[in-house]
Amino acid sequence: MRDHYDDQDHHECGRGCAGHVRGGETAAASVPEAARDPARRGFLRGGMLAGASAALGGLGAPSLSHAATTMKRSTLSHYHVPATDRTVHWGYFSKRLQPVVEVESGDFVTIETLTHHANDDAERMIRGDPGAESVYYWDRHRKGVDRRGAGPMDASLFGRGAGEGLGVHICTGPVAVKDAEPGDVLEVRILDVKPRPCANPEFAGRAFGSNAAAWWGFHYKDQIEEPKGREVITIYEVDAAGERNWARALYNFRWTPQTDPYGVTHKIIDYPGVPVDHGTIQENWGVLRNIRVPIRPHFGVMGLAPAEADIVDSIPPSYTGGNMDDWRIGKGATMYYPVAVKGALLSVGDPHASQGDSELCGTAIECSLTGTFQVILHRKESLGGTPLENLAYPLLETQDEFVVHGFSFPNYLADLGPKAQSEIYSKSSTDLALRDAFRKMRHFLMTTQGLTEDEAVSLMSVAVDFGVTQVVDGNWGMHAIVKKSIFGADD
Amino acid sequence: MRDHYDDQDHHECGRGCAGHVRGGETAAASVPEAARDPARRGFLRGGMLAGASAALGGLGAPSLSHAATTMKRSTLSHYHVPATDRTVHWGYFSKRLQPVVEVESGDFVTIETLTHHANDDAERMIRGDPGAESVYYWDRHRKGVDRRGAGPMDASLFGRGAGEGLGVHICTGPVAVKDAEPGDVLEVRILDVKPRPCANPEFAGRAFGSNAAAWWGFHYKDQIEEPKGREVITIYEVDAAGERNWARALYNFRWTPQTDPYGVTHKIIDYPGVPVDHGTIQENWGVLRNIRVPIRPHFGVMGLAPAEADIVDSIPPSYTGGNMDDWRIGKGATMYYPVAVKGALLSVGDPHASQGDSELCGTAIECSLTGTFQVILHRKESLGGTPLENLAYPLLETQDEFVVHGFSFPNYLADLGPKAQSEIYSKSSTDLALRDAFRKMRHFLMTTQGLTEDEAVSLMSVAVDFGVTQVVDGNWGMHAIVKKSIFGADD
Repeated sequence: MRDHYDDQDHHECGRGCAGHVRGGETAAASVPEAARDPARRGFLRGGMLAGASAALGGLGAPSLSHAATTMKRSTLSHYHVPATDRTVHWGYFSKRLQPVVEVESGDFVTIETLTHHANDDAERMIRGDPGAESVYYWDRHRKGVDRRGAGPMDASLFGRGAGEGLGVHICTGPVAVKDAEPGDVLEVRILDVKPRPCANPEFAGRAFGSNAAAWWGFHYKDQIEEPKGREVITIYEVDAAGERNWARALYNFRWTPQTDPYGVTHKIIDYPGVPVDHGTIQENWGVLRNIRVPIRPHFGVMGLAPAEADIVDSIPPSYTGGNMDDWRIGKGATMYYPVAVKGALLSVGDPHASQGDSELCGTAIECSLTGTFQVILHRKESLGGTPLENLAYPLLETQDEFVVHGFSFPNYLADLGPKAQSEIYSKSSTDLALRDAFRKMRHFLMTTQGLTEDEAVSLMSVAVDFGVTQVVDGNWGMHAIVKKSIFGADD
Repeated sequence: MRDHYDDQDHHECGRGCAGHVRGGETAAASVPEAARDPARRGFLRGGMLAGASAALGGLGAPSLSHAATTMKRSTLSHYHVPATDRTVHWGYFSKRLQPVVEVESGDFVTIETLTHHANDDAERMIRGDPGAESVYYWDRHRKGVDRRGAGPMDASLFGRGAGEGLGVHICTGPVAVKDAEPGDVLEVRILDVKPRPCANPEFAGRAFGSNAAAWWGFHYKDQIEEPKGREVITIYEVDAAGERNWARALYNFRWTPQTDPYGVTHKIIDYPGVPVDHGTIQENWGVLRNIRVPIRPHFGVMGLAPAEADIVDSIPPSYTGGNMDDWRIGKGATMYYPVAVKGALLSVGDPHASQGDSELCGTAIECSLTGTFQVILHRKESLGGTPLENLAYPLLETQDEFVVHGFSFPNYLADLGPKAQSEIYSKSSTDLALRDAFRKMRHFLMTTQGLTEDEAVSLMSVAVDFGVTQVVDGNWGMHAIVKKSIFGADD
């Protein structure tokens, strides 16, 4: 799957592919409601829709000034990218990666994603699943995916393994977008998100996730029960059919030193995908009894390849998105990313069944998911005078809200210089991230609403909510939420 | 009104007093629904209701083990505390204040509160309102309320005025609760919140508020438009009838040096209640056009007198509550405070029509409101083994959520020593406040749900939302929200 698929007649589909979408009326009938009704996006009408209308020209989009100057398309394609050892990159973003598929603006792509915590309970999250088994394959001679992280392949830094676990997320992709160039904006609409059912017949019809309270968690150095310095995994069950909107905990266990198939012992959770030998741990069943965790399926990692380095640790989020860990990036949400490299190079991973604002203990309910996306390219030359002009940060739109994401360092790779990828882990604070969220929301309100700074500042104090996105991803994040219903009154 | 009202037959009522509520059935008929149905509070059933059932013994509360051992009451009283120069204290809490009224556990009290920003537009927020006029009265000989803040009365520190503006909020009270002792917990239920209509006939039927983007705001040293270092007031209109759930901005103006009636010129907003001479400022009408700010009426300041000092600046929140500035502390909410001094000494002020999480620019829509409260005393000896045992922080309960509030310093008066009241302004961070919110939520989950630390930490990561309460009150605040619906499932 690491080939180009320039010709949509030859795209490779996996299970569940909806097939090609062709021709005017047929296309309209097959395209999800959200994609057919760009007019709902009244707030961004005008500039922001110009690009979309180019892609959606045949689909009943309102006639906009820009539309007449761009080519109409009468064919949209739907691709399916399975998660296999050939379609994932583990623990890093890279502008040097060969795309698994190239799509055109307006196309759909279904992307399978795997949690990097599946080996916490391989019986429930790997066994019987050919894609997961190929990714997680590891015997004493070979790993299905050798590089895990952006570190050296010879593990000369810490001896943990290839890539050194400097970056942990299994990312599916990258998906290249035809004609995308630096300075463009890529819109990614999340049309659907589904749990990945367990493939082990013993647990048929069920789905599972793992929460690791790990050494990088906010709580870790602040434990009150003994033994302090412990890492704890909690296994959760999620409804595979998506009918129940809650998850429940099954059992937890304390991490004990685990020796991987290459003979390296991992005293702490320092390398992703190490198989946990359940003969060495104590499963405590019945934890969190009578507690239902509301489901918020989303992708912890979604973003584009940054330009600043050839290989970039997947953990710290940045201006091209990545590991943002905002639970609002789920079904129905749209992300806008500044394109940093040719082809944009979209990757998705770190699927979560649920997460609270802060992701306090280091992880969410890490649970394999499959998403269906529509990608729309907004060319740089079409952005002048539109709300997307000079968009230098990832912007989230949901049905009711716009959300900007502040980071301790908005572009840490550029902000912190050559040692950015290590220094980011010691320099973050929520104060810095709040400062950045404030500046981004001010920019958003002044740009998209034409407010003065004084108007934007007053509005932020009385009607914008600032919250903690995450404090566990190196580059800590705070977000700012503004409700769409605030705008556009007639009085 | 600064007298004791030990005898409920002689309480002094202002306008709007619902009168005494007497006798079993009559009482039940007059008491709000929420107060009559403590069983809704299933989550805290058991211990937490024991105290309430004592107060509500005659009102159909379920028979609990503790109830039989406490005295039944057949009379509840409803007091009304108007806001006048005799019933407010401006800019400070103090355990030395004479209570304006003493109530018994279970009683109701309606408390008028005035915004300390009313003089930003006296025509709309003071004129014609006898209570507000008495509080704000200021000619070259006399102020209606001289002390404003916890500073020296002779203004020997900065020369701003009596109390030096070290504390700014007009607080109505204190209300003493009979028999309350340190170690008890006071439950305060907010039964109703109403805007205070403008009393100026020119603006009949309307209500107004002020938002000050001031020097203590998070934005202040980070302005991008000129002239930098400006303070800006925005006047908002709020629906006096409470029928519209949104406010709109009317105009804004840049603060210019204002000379108070005593001849002191205030170049910046450094003393509360300075009358703004509208001949010296430029009103810019039509700001924030077509924008509707959702209404969230609440009390920025509500809390008990702390024990640590005789007079305490009203700005930094602490373990007894005070200036918490959480917009969730509105109608339908219940607060639980640890009692620090004899009589508890509840005061309410800093009324807000709306505020975003963070109160970024320094204030909310500051808007006079009147609240109706029921206070219930939980005696220390009844708390053993209940969720309120060892409650050392203000706890918020709403219909759907429990919220704990972290501060940079949980009890800054004790934590920072003799200079606490000045040092708190230079030592706060959101990181510290998040740390405290984490610890309090862990305590809450372990205490009220009987969770292990490992269970609590996992649940916090996947189901608790951490947000920014405020970053402008000296002792910065972050909160943690857990949904009640998570608990009590049968499976």
